[in-house]
Amino acid sequence: MKLDHVGVVVTDLEGAIALYTSAFGMRVTHRAGNENLGIVAAFLEMGGAELELIAPTRGDSMVSKFLADRGPGLHHLAYAVPDIREALAAAKSQGLELIDEEPRIGLHGVPIAFIHPKSVGGVLTELVEHG
Amino acid sequence: MKLDHVGVVVTDLEGAIALYTSAFGMRVTHRAGNENLGIVAAFLEMGGAELELIAPTRGDSMVSKFLADRGPGLHHLAYAVPDIREALAAAKSQGLELIDEEPRIGLHGVPIAFIHPKSVGGVLTELVEHG
Repeated sequence: MKLDHVGVVVTDLEGAIALYTSAFGMRVTHRAGNENLGIVAAFLEMGGAELELIAPTRGDSMVSKFLADRGPGLHHLAYAVPDIREALAAAKSQGLELIDEEPRIGLHGVPIAFIHPKSVGGVLTELVEHG
Repeated sequence: MKLDHVGVVVTDLEGAIALYTSAFGMRVTHRAGNENLGIVAAFLEMGGAELELIAPTRGDSMVSKFLADRGPGLHHLAYAVPDIREALAAAKSQGLELIDEEPRIGLHGVPIAFIHPKSVGGVLTELVEHG
């Protein structure tokens, strides 16, 4: 299981990019957004794994409840798997509760699925297929 | 800036290790503890970076307030730097608030220092010197 990225929720995407590029010398590898989820994101390289900075574009975005409840900060961990359907079946057979029973296409254009944080010690966990 | 590890606070270290090794096929690389901080930890390999599982050993541990306030889950991100004093000086010159003005020795036996989450968009950030 290889770490693919760490998701961090921010309120101001450009401000967060400025912080990580100037204070920590990181580099943006790509940007993406999802109108349905109401988010914009930037991915920064941090030596193998990436940092995904996620900001809401509207008040009912995918991350708005998280921001209201906990404020900005660490949001999820994503692991790269070779076959996401196989990994989801394995997770389910271990008793983990899946948020996505079926993979969907993520911001990178590849299949992803989330596992409920209550199954993973409070850590929202994403699987990303990199075939 | 290379990700060194992701810190996750758990209530039950052995239960968390069992979860990550059985459900996600990870491997424990080493264990450590710090009596002063009241914590025990296990590091698991996740492809370059490590997952640090941290559990309290007493009610007034370093992570007890976090657990009481937020419950188990994602706690901090740690980046490997070649020279921690240089990295701390650079962070300070960028206006970041340091928790540790001077490096101290971490669970890996190498110098570490924390930067306050309010300077880094809510993310408790650690620097780890790997010379």
